[in-house]
This record gives sequence, structure tokens and C-alpha cells, in this order.
Amino acid sequence: MAINIAIDAMGGDRGLAVTVPASIDALKKFSDIHVILVGKQAEIEQVLAGYQYDSSRITVVHAEQVVDMDELPSKALRNKRQSSMRIALNLVKENEAQACVSAGNTGALMAVAKFVLKTLPDIDRPAICTSMPTMQGHVHVLDLGANVGCTGENLLQFAVMGSVLASAVDGNATPRVGLLNIGEEEIKGHQRIKDAHLLIQETSINYVGYIEGDDIYKGNTDVVVCDGFDGNIALKSSEGVAKMIAFYLREAFNRNIFTKIAGLIAYPVLKSFKDKVDPRRYNGASLLGLRKIVIKSHGGADQFAFLQAIAEARLEVSKNVPERISAEVSKLIQGDI
Amino acid sequence: MAINIAIDAMGGDRGLAVTVPASIDALKKFSDIHVILVGKQAEIEQVLAGYQYDSSRITVVHAEQVVDMDELPSKALRNKRQSSMRIALNLVKENEAQACVSAGNTGALMAVAKFVLKTLPDIDRPAICTSMPTMQGHVHVLDLGANVGCTGENLLQFAVMGSVLASAVDGNATPRVGLLNIGEEEIKGHQRIKDAHLLIQETSINYVGYIEGDDIYKGNTDVVVCDGFDGNIALKSSEGVAKMIAFYLREAFNRNIFTKIAGLIAYPVLKSFKDKVDPRRYNGASLLGLRKIVIKSHGGADQFAFLQAIAEARLEVSKNVPERISAEVSKLIQGDI
Repeated sequence: MAINIAIDAMGGDRGLAVTVPASIDALKKFSDIHVILVGKQAEIEQVLAGYQYDSSRITVVHAEQVVDMDELPSKALRNKRQSSMRIALNLVKENEAQACVSAGNTGALMAVAKFVLKTLPDIDRPAICTSMPTMQGHVHVLDLGANVGCTGENLLQFAVMGSVLASAVDGNATPRVGLLNIGEEEIKGHQRIKDAHLLIQETSINYVGYIEGDDIYKGNTDVVVCDGFDGNIALKSSEGVAKMIAFYLREAFNRNIFTKIAGLIAYPVLKSFKDKVDPRRYNGASLLGLRKIVIKSHGGADQFAFLQAIAEARLEVSKNVPERISAEVSKLIQGDI
Repeated sequence: MAINIAIDAMGGDRGLAVTVPASIDALKKFSDIHVILVGKQAEIEQVLAGYQYDSSRITVVHAEQVVDMDELPSKALRNKRQSSMRIALNLVKENEAQACVSAGNTGALMAVAKFVLKTLPDIDRPAICTSMPTMQGHVHVLDLGANVGCTGENLLQFAVMGSVLASAVDGNATPRVGLLNIGEEEIKGHQRIKDAHLLIQETSINYVGYIEGDDIYKGNTDVVVCDGFDGNIALKSSEGVAKMIAFYLREAFNRNIFTKIAGLIAYPVLKSFKDKVDPRRYNGASLLGLRKIVIKSHGGADQFAFLQAIAEARLEVSKNVPERISAEVSKLIQGDI
């Protein structure tokens, strides 16, 4: 049976111009999926008309409204019941789809998803988890901004959820989990982090202890757990410095005719380097802790990046991520892990 | 009159092998300084013997003890009264030197410096401030880890201190100050940050409001204010991602004979790029809010990096940074800024 993926076709900075072609690419790449494009029907059909695709594998569901990229979550929840985001989530709730992908406003997506799909039993707060490149492969980091001011107990739940995700999607039976802090001395950091440190130690999680910001990229952990504020600072600072480095690298090769020639000669090497650290490859953050699968794409995602978010949705459906999280959290409550 | 700079010659991962030659380089670069090397006299003299230098411009002061890189600050304060770090700071206290430079343990340096030199009147907590590269130049970021769990009032003081530093060392009369947060919506973030936001708005500081992690590197602020935990996460994450990018760039050029040839051809360009983003150029963090000037070098600094920290000390002495901070904080208390 096909995996049905509901796409919030209107979401993101470029909306249909990205979501529609990326969905068609996904159909080509994955023979086992069916895509439901949710949004303004006439507009979607107009964009679809420009492409070749198997029409039996795409359904269009009309939605009259669009959640704005800067709309307050509470307003999106109250006033946008006919939005493409809301209707895509409704399709998941009603089992018409097994996952939803949206490049819309993160706060609104989390609020509406929590309201429509509900959190798993015994999960206090869903978290946003993304994977990031490391010198060895990749690492799953959560939370990235959904929860500010977590308790130690919340962070423990994030450790369980991240560990389950890594285990499910990477096939790693004992993912190494680190807790983001500012020093290796046990005296540093916030109380919540010290609490979480003790709580996680008591479980069977493969806990490696405190890590610092630079450790995220070293590849010595598979999961990094942090408060949403801290995770967001780490993620955004990393994005900023990576953009600055790219800026100066381009500038150096564009300085004059000689540097431009050097750039042409080095182009294949620079291209292979760029592909390796390309943030678009890591697009598609998971809203973990909900009863169903919701993937948040970066708002500025292009067609290639949005395709990765759809691929992440498909992978999590095939690995039954929410069911596995639920089972592990139940064990945790019963003191079995 | 010469600027006397006391060097904790034993501090840092490589101690004398870095601090001594960097000090000799500093004498060559700056004709107006005198260096006081504090540490194990026989060892210092042995290293000095390997170099050509003007012996009238270097004094050696013996110190029997060394603060270990992982020593607890409280222990360093209690048990290491004869350490090179402590004696270098004593020289500053006794006006034998105008500034101290140390690559030793950050926590110990802050604790000992606060004890020996004291904080400025009306400053609650000194902060660690470093400059970082941006797409437009550089930015001063504080606090980077000395203070976890700041109040809005503490953050306001950091804004004043950072603003004074930027104004003094960059000659920028109205440095733009941003407050690190996780979103531009006023509802996000910790209470301390919301409090600081209101407090800074009431001053004459050129406050640009909340900024996010990626804004640090854009060059649209001259000073970034944050809690020490958040600043440390931002700094370390940035370091980590920059190292990962450098790792993959090297890897791409080292893959085979063709990529190595491309690397040779592109070498001058890659070199000019590397110089631009070289973190060693930004070595030398200021412990702001003390009565005297203390500069913290990265523990892993090499000779070039440590020289930058000495240059920062010299610059701050010539610009009377502590006096200017004190004057601005007094104005703040009196409601004049």
C-alpha cells in the first residue's frame, strides 16, 4: 500500500513554485508514495499543468486559506481553520495521509499540529528535531525552538525521543546521546541541565554526558539534547557562520581574473565540498512527540531541499517512528529503560 | 612612558613555547610596550636564550606555581597564591603593569582577577567579551560564559560595557547593540531577555533590538549582548561548524592527484580566504567590568594568536577602557544615558 503524504502546498517563502515540483520529484524518486497537495486548487492545477507526472499518484485537496509566515500561532489556530496547513494536518488525523510536510511558519505548525493530532500519551511537550552534518556523518539535535525553559524531565523525554528516532532512521541500536552544556565540569550550566543529567543516567539510554557546542559537529554523538532556546541559538549561529564562510570563499575566488581562473580549475573540488556540507541535504525537521508524523521544511527551502523533507516523512512512516517513541516512553514511565 | 604588560607565561596548553616567542614578537611590533613574563624563572630564561630580543624591554618575575587548565576556580584561588596567573594579576593591582594577558583556565582567571583587581563600582558581574568576524568586519560579543542566569539588569550592564568597548577600540561613536534571542517576535525567549529589552530601550544606547544567532555574522550589529550560557553555546557551535567546514574543504582537495593539483593552483586564493576568517586573528577576550585590563587568550593559542591577545591588551590600555566603562556606568546609575 502506498504511503500517503499530505503536503501543505502553500507553505514556505515560495509556496507552490517549490512544493509542487518537489512533490513530482518525490514521486519519481520513491515508487511507494502518493502525494496529496493541499491548497488553492486552481493555482495548484495551474502549476501542475507545467509538468509531466503520473496523475494517479497526486491528489489535490482544496484549502481556501493560507497561514502567513509571520502569523502568531494562536491566531493561526483560531482564524485559519480552512488553511492548507490545517487541512493537511486534518488529513493525517483522519488517516487519509500518514504524514504531513509543511514549509510554513514553525510556531503555527507546532500549535496546529498539537491541537489537531495531539501529543503521545505521557509526552509533555513535542520537540523539533533536525539532523545536522558532522565530521563523521550526522547527528540529530532536539529541541530547536519549540520549548523554552524545559525541565529536566522534559529534556529526559527529548533524550528518549531522539534516541528512538536515531535508532529507527539510522538503524543504530544504541545511539550515543549527549546533553548540551557549556563546560564539562559538573558545576556549570542551568539547574534543568543538571537535573536532566541525573535523570538520563538512570535510564538505559547510551548517554555520553555533557557536550559543548563544538562537539555537535565532531561526530562523537548521534543525538544532542537541549532546551529549545539553546538549540535554536546553536543552530542559527552555525547557519550564520557557515554563510559567512561561504561568502568569504566566493569573494576570494571572485577577486580578479586570476582568482576566477583558479576557481574554474578548482570548481569540481569546490562543488564536491559544497555538496558535502549542503544544508539543503539536512532539510526536514521532525515534530517529535505527536501521535502522527509532521515534518517541518525550512521556509526558504528550494525544490531540492523540500524533496529531502518529503523523503524524511516517507522514511519516518516506513519506520513507524511515533509508535516506537510511544513504546519507549511507556517503558520509561514504567521504569523499564 | 611604556605600556607594561604582565604575561602569565605558564598559561595555556603550550605555555612558554607560545607565550615567550609571542611576547618577543609583540616587542618587535609595538615600540611602546614593555613585557613582564611571570612564571618559572629558570624555564623562562632558558626559552628566552633561544631568541634575539632587547633585554631592556623584558622583565622576568618568578612564580613557583602554575594553575592547571582544569583546576576548579575556587581551588586556584585558595591554593595557588604563588601561581604565575596570580602574580601577573598582582603586578596589575600594584600598578607595575597596566594589563595582564593569560591563556590559562578561564574560570580561574575570572575568579582570581575578580578577587585581586575587584569589579568596577556599580558593576555587578564582569563579563567575557570577544570580537568575532562578520561579513562586514567584526562584532563584540558578551558574555561568553562567565555568567549563567543573568538578570535583565546584568544584561543592561553588558550592553553598556560592550558599547563602551566598541566605541573605544573601534572609534565608533554609536555602536549598534543587539540582544541575542531566538525569534523576532516579542513573545519568545526568557524573561531576563524581555527585561533587558525594556531596560536597554530606556537608555541612549544605539539599541537595534533582538537579533538571532545567524545575525551575529551578518555585520548589522557592532555589539551582541547575551547571557554567558547562550554566548558560550553560540561561540562554541560556531567554532565547531567552522572546523567541520575546514575539515571537508581539506578533504575535498586531498582526495586524489587531480584535486591536489587543483588545490595547488587555488592555494593563494584559499590562503587569502583562510586569513580572512582565521579565528587566531580574533584571539584575546576582554574581562570587562574589572578595575583593570585582563585579556584571556584561547588556551590552544599559537604564537600568532597569543600576539593578538597582547595587541588587544595594549589597545585597551591606550584607550583607557576601564575608566570609560566606569564613567558610562555611573551615568547609567544617575539616569543620564
